[in-house]
Amino acid sequence: MNPLPTIRLILKSFLSLLWFLFLSLAAVANARDTDSLPSWNSGPAKSAIVQFVKDVTKKGGPDFVPPAERIATFDNDGTLWCEQPMYVQLAFALDRVKAEAPAHPEWKTTEPFKSVLADDMKGVMASGEKGLVEMIMATHTGMTVEEFNQIAKYWLSLSKHPRFNRPYTELVYQPMLELLAFLRANGFKTYIVSGGGVEFMRPWTEKVYGVPPEQVIGSSIKMKYELVDGKPVLMRLPEIDFIDDKDGKPVGIQKFIGRRPIAAFGNSDGDYQMLQWTTGNNGPHFGLLVHHTDAKREYAYDRDSAFGRLDKALDEAPKNGWTVVDMKKDWKRVFPFDKP
Amino acid sequence: MNPLPTIRLILKSFLSLLWFLFLSLAAVANARDTDSLPSWNSGPAKSAIVQFVKDVTKKGGPDFVPPAERIATFDNDGTLWCEQPMYVQLAFALDRVKAEAPAHPEWKTTEPFKSVLADDMKGVMASGEKGLVEMIMATHTGMTVEEFNQIAKYWLSLSKHPRFNRPYTELVYQPMLELLAFLRANGFKTYIVSGGGVEFMRPWTEKVYGVPPEQVIGSSIKMKYELVDGKPVLMRLPEIDFIDDKDGKPVGIQKFIGRRPIAAFGNSDGDYQMLQWTTGNNGPHFGLLVHHTDAKREYAYDRDSAFGRLDKALDEAPKNGWTVVDMKKDWKRVFPFDKP
Repeated sequence: MNPLPTIRLILKSFLSLLWFLFLSLAAVANARDTDSLPSWNSGPAKSAIVQFVKDVTKKGGPDFVPPAERIATFDNDGTLWCEQPMYVQLAFALDRVKAEAPAHPEWKTTEPFKSVLADDMKGVMASGEKGLVEMIMATHTGMTVEEFNQIAKYWLSLSKHPRFNRPYTELVYQPMLELLAFLRANGFKTYIVSGGGVEFMRPWTEKVYGVPPEQVIGSSIKMKYELVDGKPVLMRLPEIDFIDDKDGKPVGIQKFIGRRPIAAFGNSDGDYQMLQWTTGNNGPHFGLLVHHTDAKREYAYDRDSAFGRLDKALDEAPKNGWTVVDMKKDWKRVFPFDKP
Repeated sequence: MNPLPTIRLILKSFLSLLWFLFLSLAAVANARDTDSLPSWNSGPAKSAIVQFVKDVTKKGGPDFVPPAERIATFDNDGTLWCEQPMYVQLAFALDRVKAEAPAHPEWKTTEPFKSVLADDMKGVMASGEKGLVEMIMATHTGMTVEEFNQIAKYWLSLSKHPRFNRPYTELVYQPMLELLAFLRANGFKTYIVSGGGVEFMRPWTEKVYGVPPEQVIGSSIKMKYELVDGKPVLMRLPEIDFIDDKDGKPVGIQKFIGRRPIAAFGNSDGDYQMLQWTTGNNGPHFGLLVHHTDAKREYAYDRDSAFGRLDKALDEAPKNGWTVVDMKKDWKRVFPFDKP
């Protein structure tokens, strides 16, 4: 028997096998592609996201953006996790005031602490921004960064949401987790750009969102480098360093990233300038607002909300070409623990 | 003829081929490994670097560090590029004063501008930090970030070093370029942490060092987000935001990265705290100082230098276990244009 046909046969089988593998992989890749956002219902919001990602990743296409420039910024409160009935960090601050009250007898008679200790939320809110800042200074400073991170992490591991009775870190939006992963799978670098405190978020964003500490931008207090018993530490000082909200968001983005994002995701008027900055460039861009319309599965709020007020940004979304997510309609699931 | 031996033969050849490919690749990888720092002479500095990288990348080893935590920070002036006879950014500021002088007749009679216009460097330096800040404010602010980046980039494209007669961006240290690449090839994220202005560096660090804008930390001035003719811009304000030098470096590292580095590289007392912070942790760590000892190929300076003064950090290097590079001895080449 001539060995050549055998060799040919083996080679042919081998090539067929390779081709089969290639087709299978292509099919899997394709299936994965259409399935990257399983918790999003079909509709204009999902289509707009998928189309944008397709456009900027299409090599040689008119809207192609090199991977290094695929910067996407996400607000946190109300965009990635639940911000009702109050910002999680505010719940943290209230608990910290109560925990530290024994060492501060003067708090019994001074606002906003008096109201906090009396569980009088109206009184707390009446103290306004000044009162909130005082509370932050009293509870978020005077320790090292490491110590504060431990305190925040410990509190988050024990505390539960009053309505859902689950840890706050489980009250993240499943469709947004999928969106973060989908963007990263398409070469995007995903950042958090939040009005919340940067060191309150950093201990858990990598595990929960896949966003590492160096990609978290937030409000901050000043720090001082010093030696304590010969060991270097970073002390948190009772002084505001930077407020990463409203027109602070584009400033924070430039400070920390030094590039203009091509996609931005928010849910309130605090995100207006970030979306305006992102979608105001000449190249391809994408802006999205999460509109909380689902009182049953989460909350329904916008113009009159104390937290996450959405008014001007909602009005101007159509004019600016921003995609508005109708939570009730567009999201198959809200939280990871919801039934699919 | 029985086809089985043929098949066996083909399979055997195929396996041999695979084995051969594997060995070749291993050999190439190995060769690359020992050759990653070709501009470093054999000696304690090179050995210490290679050993550290080996230790922290060895899976299952006692000093293994997960890739996400492999943060390496580099000073810029005097560590990555030449800082003599003066900081490049100071040369830039002097040129900007001269270029803008016609619009500022008052500069003819006010310091430090008067000295700048008279090419009197002694007079400029005599104006101290106050004078330098005034000069920075006058030449680095009042325009948008984008405009400033253009100005810096344009100046760098035209200006040449007075001694070497080459663009400043060519006066980078070849051994340090190799070190940056070597660390990145081993899973490190490389950051610049410089006392220089962050927006002066960002336009060129990616091309020259392979460090993208979001991994550049530096001193900064305040910015304001505003609309000019309906278009959003970030205006640079005449107000210092952050000085990323000395004890500002660990603060900057925490602000921007939120992780403690495991390796830090500097050349002056301005880097002392960064090295102290980096090498003061309990895990594996590495600190290195470039000591400028080579008047022939570059410059020789340390304790008495106006720029890049190296005194305390040099004295304390042995005690702290910091590697000191003797430029003359340890570097085969200084600049990329030097003969290998």
